[in-house]
Amino acid sequence: MEIRVDNVKGEVNYKKAIEEFGVTPIDEELEKLKRVTNLDKLYRRGIIFAHRDLHAITDAIKNKKKFSVLTGVNPSGPLHFGNKLFVDQAKFFQNNGADVFIPISNDESYVFRKVKNIDDATKNAYNIVIPELIALGLKKRKTHIFVSTRYRKIYELAVKLSTKITFSMIKAIFGFNNETSPGQIFYGVVQVAHILSPQLEEFGGPKPVVVPIGIDQDPYMRLARDIAVKSGFMKPSSTYHKFIRGLSGGKMSGSKPNNAIFLTDSPKIAEKKIMRAITGGGGSAEEQKKNGGNPDNCSVYDYLKMHLIEDDNKLKKIYDDCRSGRRLCGECKKEAAELMKKFLIKFDEKLERAKDQVDDYLIHER
Amino acid sequence: MEIRVDNVKGEVNYKKAIEEFGVTPIDEELEKLKRVTNLDKLYRRGIIFAHRDLHAITDAIKNKKKFSVLTGVNPSGPLHFGNKLFVDQAKFFQNNGADVFIPISNDESYVFRKVKNIDDATKNAYNIVIPELIALGLKKRKTHIFVSTRYRKIYELAVKLSTKITFSMIKAIFGFNNETSPGQIFYGVVQVAHILSPQLEEFGGPKPVVVPIGIDQDPYMRLARDIAVKSGFMKPSSTYHKFIRGLSGGKMSGSKPNNAIFLTDSPKIAEKKIMRAITGGGGSAEEQKKNGGNPDNCSVYDYLKMHLIEDDNKLKKIYDDCRSGRRLCGECKKEAAELMKKFLIKFDEKLERAKDQVDDYLIHER
Repeated sequence: MEIRVDNVKGEVNYKKAIEEFGVTPIDEELEKLKRVTNLDKLYRRGIIFAHRDLHAITDAIKNKKKFSVLTGVNPSGPLHFGNKLFVDQAKFFQNNGADVFIPISNDESYVFRKVKNIDDATKNAYNIVIPELIALGLKKRKTHIFVSTRYRKIYELAVKLSTKITFSMIKAIFGFNNETSPGQIFYGVVQVAHILSPQLEEFGGPKPVVVPIGIDQDPYMRLARDIAVKSGFMKPSSTYHKFIRGLSGGKMSGSKPNNAIFLTDSPKIAEKKIMRAITGGGGSAEEQKKNGGNPDNCSVYDYLKMHLIEDDNKLKKIYDDCRSGRRLCGECKKEAAELMKKFLIKFDEKLERAKDQVDDYLIHER
Repeated sequence: MEIRVDNVKGEVNYKKAIEEFGVTPIDEELEKLKRVTNLDKLYRRGIIFAHRDLHAITDAIKNKKKFSVLTGVNPSGPLHFGNKLFVDQAKFFQNNGADVFIPISNDESYVFRKVKNIDDATKNAYNIVIPELIALGLKKRKTHIFVSTRYRKIYELAVKLSTKITFSMIKAIFGFNNETSPGQIFYGVVQVAHILSPQLEEFGGPKPVVVPIGIDQDPYMRLARDIAVKSGFMKPSSTYHKFIRGLSGGKMSGSKPNNAIFLTDSPKIAEKKIMRAITGGGGSAEEQKKNGGNPDNCSVYDYLKMHLIEDDNKLKKIYDDCRSGRRLCGECKKEAAELMKKFLIKFDEKLERAKDQVDDYLIHER
């Protein structure tokens, strides 16, 4: 989907986004979730900032009821640390009992022209993206991955759902025009089919499902929730997280290679990207020592907070030391680069092993 | 598809239809086809009246090259003698070397609201329609049947083709509006995917394909031919046949049970329908003896000509005797009813055997 929040450039006004999209701030629900499980760092650190109907998931965890988490991946390229945020949320819910569903949308890659040839996206899905997902630590038998055009139930489900909406509804939400291809129009329904697929009969029928999703993708969520009610499914829940900043500024994007670190980047390349990153520091070392830095607008601190440091106390010390001017950007970059290198070396080993396990994670049709 | 030729009511002006749709009258090509094979009665008797690029098929037959014939079936109900006309053409080409492809469009049945539930159409496809197709005499191993949502290559092919057209092209051809569902819009591309499916790599790649199709469905053919050229496939050929008249008047339609004979009608029911049919006779027996009847506008004669009598001389005698007033409608009805009963009894036996053979005729995915 090509929808962007207008102000997704560096600083995003998340308060405004909450109002605009009509989602719910996370705080109240977080108190309840805290009582039934140990929160993941993404929750503890305010990275997840809003939701829809997350209480259905809290209840499922509390009452040990069946539920699922679903997050889609676009296989137009290898995964980066922005994608990892979604997978980390899926793992959090998986550790709390959820089955994980991951549709790989080779159809989306193609109809929105992110790849020239759908077969490239399909190959990339099986050869790179799925091994990467496995290497990130999703559990066998509790993870169900499928490539959108290769799991025939998806098209059939999309056909079923398609009669619940009209072209004008799609147009109102996504702003299509006459030059839009029928594949783009229909993909709106296919993504809804992805979102509702964990509730198919073969997976035990209607159940709570949570979808970690970008706030800019919320129109799809609204559509899915509308159609769910009309089709005998439960309304899916959703969570929204803050974007990770791009290393060279703005929002992280997979199409600007120096702006993102990819899971398959070599440790050396990743180190270079971090050492050159735009930080929240300002002016000379002297000035920064005097005035302190701004970790709240720092791409390197984003990596530490979102990905590289588990220990809250350690992270807090870094934050405070930056603020007070005791810690300069060089030190943070060096630490981030070291942690990143360790992560990537380990990930690479896991990735090699994961390549033989693809079949164990795929949905096999009956 | 809900498109209808306006004047498809009893008498159709086929000359006008040829001009309107821009198809080619069959006569010239028939002379060439006659030189390479024995013509089926549908060709000998002027029932096939027009075509597009049939020469590609004549050439394939002549040069013993690979080619296919494709005809779709809508599984919203059991097959009738209007559907049989398409299958008879497929058999003719199969006898001349073609592989037969039959997509069963459960998606079309559903998105155009011919069934309330897509699963009803799917069940009907496997339990009734496919056995009927087999019982009509299609050859094992030279026939490839699939249910549209159950053969995943179709959605993938449709996604590929969808980028070659825009919504406004679909709109211009089919007259959709804002109330149209995305499933209806996308189905235009899915039907094109059906038409081009015999040219997929797994079936040997691009090749001549002929599609026997109703003249009212020609817009789909035009779209398929346009997209074929843009997608590395050969332009499919097509043939158009005259509609069989409804027994109670107008065009035969499966939704008016007394208007059509279904392959699963009991001999008794079929006899009743024929005995009550509207014929080309007029006035009293006396008047008809004097003025003769009109076999060219007679639903019973349509059955004799299109389905029940193989011998051309025998048919010609009936035609002449009707024209001259020597033969009255009662005699024709009785003869048609007898032949029909024989056909249905034999068909029913074949149908029972066919139910065990469904799997042999389905495309199995690799």
